[in-house]
Amino acid sequence: MPFSFRLTHTDGGARRDVITTQHGDVDTPVFMPVGTQGVVKAMTSRDLEEVGARVILGNTYHLLLRPGPDLIARRGGLHRFISWPHPILTDSGGYQVFSLASRRSVDESGVTFRSHLDGSAHLLSPERAVDIQAHLGSDIAMVLDECPALPAALADLDRSLELTARWARRCRDRFGQLSLGTGDAHVPAPINPGQAQFGIVQGGTDRSLRAKSAALTTAIGFEGYALGGLSVGESPHTMYQVVEDTTPLLPVDRPRYLMGVGTPHDLVEAVARGIDMFDCVLPTRNARNGQLFTTHGVLNIKNARFAEDDAPLDEGCACYTCRTFSRAYLRHLYLANEVTASMLHTLHNLRFYLDTMEAIRNAISFGTFQSFRQEIRRVFPLRSLTS
Amino acid sequence: MPFSFRLTHTDGGARRDVITTQHGDVDTPVFMPVGTQGVVKAMTSRDLEEVGARVILGNTYHLLLRPGPDLIARRGGLHRFISWPHPILTDSGGYQVFSLASRRSVDESGVTFRSHLDGSAHLLSPERAVDIQAHLGSDIAMVLDECPALPAALADLDRSLELTARWARRCRDRFGQLSLGTGDAHVPAPINPGQAQFGIVQGGTDRSLRAKSAALTTAIGFEGYALGGLSVGESPHTMYQVVEDTTPLLPVDRPRYLMGVGTPHDLVEAVARGIDMFDCVLPTRNARNGQLFTTHGVLNIKNARFAEDDAPLDEGCACYTCRTFSRAYLRHLYLANEVTASMLHTLHNLRFYLDTMEAIRNAISFGTFQSFRQEIRRVFPLRSLTS
Repeated sequence: MPFSFRLTHTDGGARRDVITTQHGDVDTPVFMPVGTQGVVKAMTSRDLEEVGARVILGNTYHLLLRPGPDLIARRGGLHRFISWPHPILTDSGGYQVFSLASRRSVDESGVTFRSHLDGSAHLLSPERAVDIQAHLGSDIAMVLDECPALPAALADLDRSLELTARWARRCRDRFGQLSLGTGDAHVPAPINPGQAQFGIVQGGTDRSLRAKSAALTTAIGFEGYALGGLSVGESPHTMYQVVEDTTPLLPVDRPRYLMGVGTPHDLVEAVARGIDMFDCVLPTRNARNGQLFTTHGVLNIKNARFAEDDAPLDEGCACYTCRTFSRAYLRHLYLANEVTASMLHTLHNLRFYLDTMEAIRNAISFGTFQSFRQEIRRVFPLRSLTS
Repeated sequence: MPFSFRLTHTDGGARRDVITTQHGDVDTPVFMPVGTQGVVKAMTSRDLEEVGARVILGNTYHLLLRPGPDLIARRGGLHRFISWPHPILTDSGGYQVFSLASRRSVDESGVTFRSHLDGSAHLLSPERAVDIQAHLGSDIAMVLDECPALPAALADLDRSLELTARWARRCRDRFGQLSLGTGDAHVPAPINPGQAQFGIVQGGTDRSLRAKSAALTTAIGFEGYALGGLSVGESPHTMYQVVEDTTPLLPVDRPRYLMGVGTPHDLVEAVARGIDMFDCVLPTRNARNGQLFTTHGVLNIKNARFAEDDAPLDEGCACYTCRTFSRAYLRHLYLANEVTASMLHTLHNLRFYLDTMEAIRNAISFGTFQSFRQEIRRVFPLRSLTS
């Protein structure tokens, strides 16, 4: 079953589609919970299935350092290692490496960095990023891109997106070599022959640089395209504008992935502009901090007014947490620093996000996306939380 | 449905029985997972049901300080607050208070202590210990006892067990008052009219003091009897000897509870000497530290030899963890400090303990307890772990 993409519905700029992978179909627009170290924090595989997750994200940087791609490959790949039979997307590791700031240096060959765990030195080249992800056997692999810190001078952004484009070319060449077989006995065959590879468009918040990056990246040709370098401090309006300017430059018959985004407000605004895929730590990280998403907005469980509140987090939610426990009890668990609070809150927040994505898909099918978008904008106004 | 106890089988000194409570039956010998702050750490109610828990323990000391018995009573009692419909036993808080050492002082009226959370001063008197547990609405409440630090002079132990006996009398009187109704509008009716009360036998490791304490306690008359002040540093053989000397002094038609015990080895040795009930943090705490119980003995998941081990923790175990994940993956989660490791390890260890108790009950029914006991002694020799 090769990777494929089929557009099924549109509603204004929003689109609904089906991505087919070796590990099953994914209906989009889709939100991918983040499983940084080979696990979505405070979740198990069956919890993820229960809340409706169909594709999760793994972080190449973290898995590279621990337990290492070779060990995972010997275990049969990431799906088998973590017991997740559904699709997995892996990032290239670039974003995390660039966030190491003083502990990394970039040149044409790639990026050299020191591990945050033990200080050991590593080179992440475009080819190595492809090889690692081949070892992991994810269904969607990302190219290595440079993620410049913002704000940056236009000349620096331009230089950076050109480097990203040259790296993308090398990633694509390596990806092709691996699928054909390198003939090199030291290079194992890919774990997942159905793996797809996505390119990444950079260019900061400048329209013409984004257009240039989109042109360079689509000229190489990938199974899908991501927008990188957003949600890094720019205003939501600026981000929405970049998305709006860039998606028309991407092929209509390939999935579009907005990396690291975002709030419920961000999700509907990006879907309205043609985005199909999202990932973000917001629902899981905020769950652990006691910030819960509900159909009435954001709820901070530590608030004293919940001390004797027998209602569930969200009376309309069908998750185990809402079916079983009161706000009063969840507040107690949170204040008592119980791990079970993280478990129950994460279960709820992911369910909220995945239910929201399902509602978005259904609204697109029925042509009611604009009214759903307005409702989400009303419940989660900009600045109702920080991503 | 009043509290009752029915002996169904014996095998040597071991006995199998059924305890009936307002919240359902409990087959004994039984192990009670410890839910200190109104939750068994890293578990949910459905996890506990899945692993076969039928009665859990709540700690009065912790719940007294946070969120407080009044709040729990207003929520309808502990069962409803924590969404656990099955039996609950609450301790009196005495053990935790006495472990505060420098932050408490004892006199005839009770024990005055300072909260470990905010330093606030509290008096725990025998009557207050009964009232708090009435507010919590547990199915089995414990009397307030003095827990002397060991080693102690015989005269001090003697004085202490006499104080414990006087407190037991006051606890029983208060318990009777509450069940009849105090006539005092400020004292709410007990949440759980089917609540039973257990006395506690103290006396250190001295046979005659234990006999004296047993005589004083049984003369008052309770629905069940506990052995307190054990597993506090004495050798296992000493503990077993105390149990062996004391259980014949307790009424045969009442449940016997060995508090805070123990290892699998301890469980079979105490069952062999007529104990029906246990609680201990060992399976849950050790789970979080990566120490797992299996039918082949104790397994430390951080051991390097499990790095590439695709086998489950215990190939004979039917828990979710063993059905789904490899030792290699569990080791990775543990080393990566993922909360999910605590969840999966706790699920397994509790399942092991509860399966072991079920095996003990079945062995008693079939008259094969001695051979099961020998097998557990072989797999978990003394000193194979620390409780």
